[in-house]
Amino acid sequence: MSTVAVPSPPPTASEDAESLRKALQGWRADKAALVGILCRRTAAQRAAIRRAYAFLYREPLLNCFRYKLSRHYCLLSVDFWKALILWTMDPAERDANLVHEAVKKKDENYILVLIEVSCASTPDHLLAVRKIYLKLFSCSIEEDVASSPALREPLKKMLVSLVSSYRYAGEQVDMDVAKLEAAQLSEAIREKQLHGNEVVRIISTRSKSQLRATFQQYKEDQGRDIAEDINSRCSSQFGRMLKSAVWCLTSPEKHFAQVIRYSILGVGTYEDLLTRVIVSRAELDMKRIKEEYMARYKSAVTLDVAGDTSFGYRDMLLALVGSED
Amino acid sequence: MSTVAVPSPPPTASEDAESLRKALQGWRADKAALVGILCRRTAAQRAAIRRAYAFLYREPLLNCFRYKLSRHYCLLSVDFWKALILWTMDPAERDANLVHEAVKKKDENYILVLIEVSCASTPDHLLAVRKIYLKLFSCSIEEDVASSPALREPLKKMLVSLVSSYRYAGEQVDMDVAKLEAAQLSEAIREKQLHGNEVVRIISTRSKSQLRATFQQYKEDQGRDIAEDINSRCSSQFGRMLKSAVWCLTSPEKHFAQVIRYSILGVGTYEDLLTRVIVSRAELDMKRIKEEYMARYKSAVTLDVAGDTSFGYRDMLLALVGSED
Repeated sequence: MSTVAVPSPPPTASEDAESLRKALQGWRADKAALVGILCRRTAAQRAAIRRAYAFLYREPLLNCFRYKLSRHYCLLSVDFWKALILWTMDPAERDANLVHEAVKKKDENYILVLIEVSCASTPDHLLAVRKIYLKLFSCSIEEDVASSPALREPLKKMLVSLVSSYRYAGEQVDMDVAKLEAAQLSEAIREKQLHGNEVVRIISTRSKSQLRATFQQYKEDQGRDIAEDINSRCSSQFGRMLKSAVWCLTSPEKHFAQVIRYSILGVGTYEDLLTRVIVSRAELDMKRIKEEYMARYKSAVTLDVAGDTSFGYRDMLLALVGSED
Repeated sequence: MSTVAVPSPPPTASEDAESLRKALQGWRADKAALVGILCRRTAAQRAAIRRAYAFLYREPLLNCFRYKLSRHYCLLSVDFWKALILWTMDPAERDANLVHEAVKKKDENYILVLIEVSCASTPDHLLAVRKIYLKLFSCSIEEDVASSPALREPLKKMLVSLVSSYRYAGEQVDMDVAKLEAAQLSEAIREKQLHGNEVVRIISTRSKSQLRATFQQYKEDQGRDIAEDINSRCSSQFGRMLKSAVWCLTSPEKHFAQVIRYSILGVGTYEDLLTRVIVSRAELDMKRIKEEYMARYKSAVTLDVAGDTSFGYRDMLLALVGSED
């Protein structure tokens, strides 16, 4: 499902590090070369390149990028360097940084980061993010979320439960539980009591396979999709975030297609959203996100991204999104 | 702080496995030999012995113990084999099994297992327990606790938060936070509103260093120990469990000395408690527990254990508790 086009055979990590060093020289870096190398390598290859670069040149590659970023005041260059830094980072470290930035903000677009990292990741990735967060910031994610003055109950309760979860990742499903919990969810939605203990418990502790079965059962019982029902009956912020969690858990492509659309229709800081989605999903499910985007908005992600961005930043995003089939 | 007396130099794992094989032969196993070997080895050495035994005899050592257990109907032998199995297991697997057994019971002595494993362990040990629990039981600890019909709110909420936590394990402390949260705790205790969001948040997300600073601040402000205050003002089950959590987090020896005392004063099934405490703390802080026990109850753990148990079971516990200094 990855849209990252790795050349075959790829250069060695040392060769890549040398090419990157050349591309970084001079006042203007060779952005095309940076994109041509880094955006065509997997996370494991990028890690090897970071190690080779640090070994050869006695400084971290990311520090060179951060130095370039600090010297650019043109918005498009800033977006380019920010995106390149996020893409070059270890994915768990990247998400830990995104979460740390998000915890302090009231903006819904940032609260979504917490839901994306906790629900659209594998349980083991979330654990890796929590580990590195502890190391980087000397406190836990749940500690920061629970004590954040920017977040209010009952949303805070749900977010704390989501980021603390370590779900079963297997396929085993209990259909009795699915039936019971589909009924509990339907009652909560009907009575607009989403923030009760049961809804948060189900969403934050059950495995993705189990939730898929529960939501399927809900559809059979109610004749409607649970995400649609939450959307139409509970329009509060909590309802919107719950719908995002439901999507991230069982069909993340729907959530991310919507975030891309929203970031493209908007102006200004929405580049942060666009970068976040493309960088974090390129290696996971970008193909499915593109299909979903096409089906829903009758337009191609590549076309819309190309129309809304420019120069190096655009080239980088397009390299990660891949060509349309 | 371990009371496990490892011989120097210890035999190799293969030699130990051979000796164990001999000790297991015949209808009556040679319990003294089993204790003499296993209760004088660290967790890492026991793991090596398990591997060597499985390699040499093509069956897991623990299965041999379980077979012996299944053939004994005398209570003292049952206690011996149950204790030996728990001691020989990988510590994280042992705790995962204890938690799994505990989740289904209403008995406070079992609920304590959840508090002990989540609060008196290192954050990384708790994580290891959660990982192995997922593997063994195809669901997460927090999932089982949250959906357990045996547990009621608000205790359930606190237990779910405690078992889901992954605390910062460093020494860094924020004194402003300590002052603020000491005041929040004191207000909650004064108004007997322990189960509010703030108390559970503080207890379940803050690091042990931070909590030590907060409880110290509480003592300076109030002139009394927070555990005493919880005890005297909030005698509900929630209050008792909260006090246990406070102790397990910052002075586990107080909690475990009390559990040993309780199990010795009782009769019947309290062997489960005694075994659990001694097996799980022998390699961690049994020396401190013994000192605390002596200071509080004016009696030695070894004396009281010897007086309350007999035969192989007694010898095993005494080997783990170690001699009094």
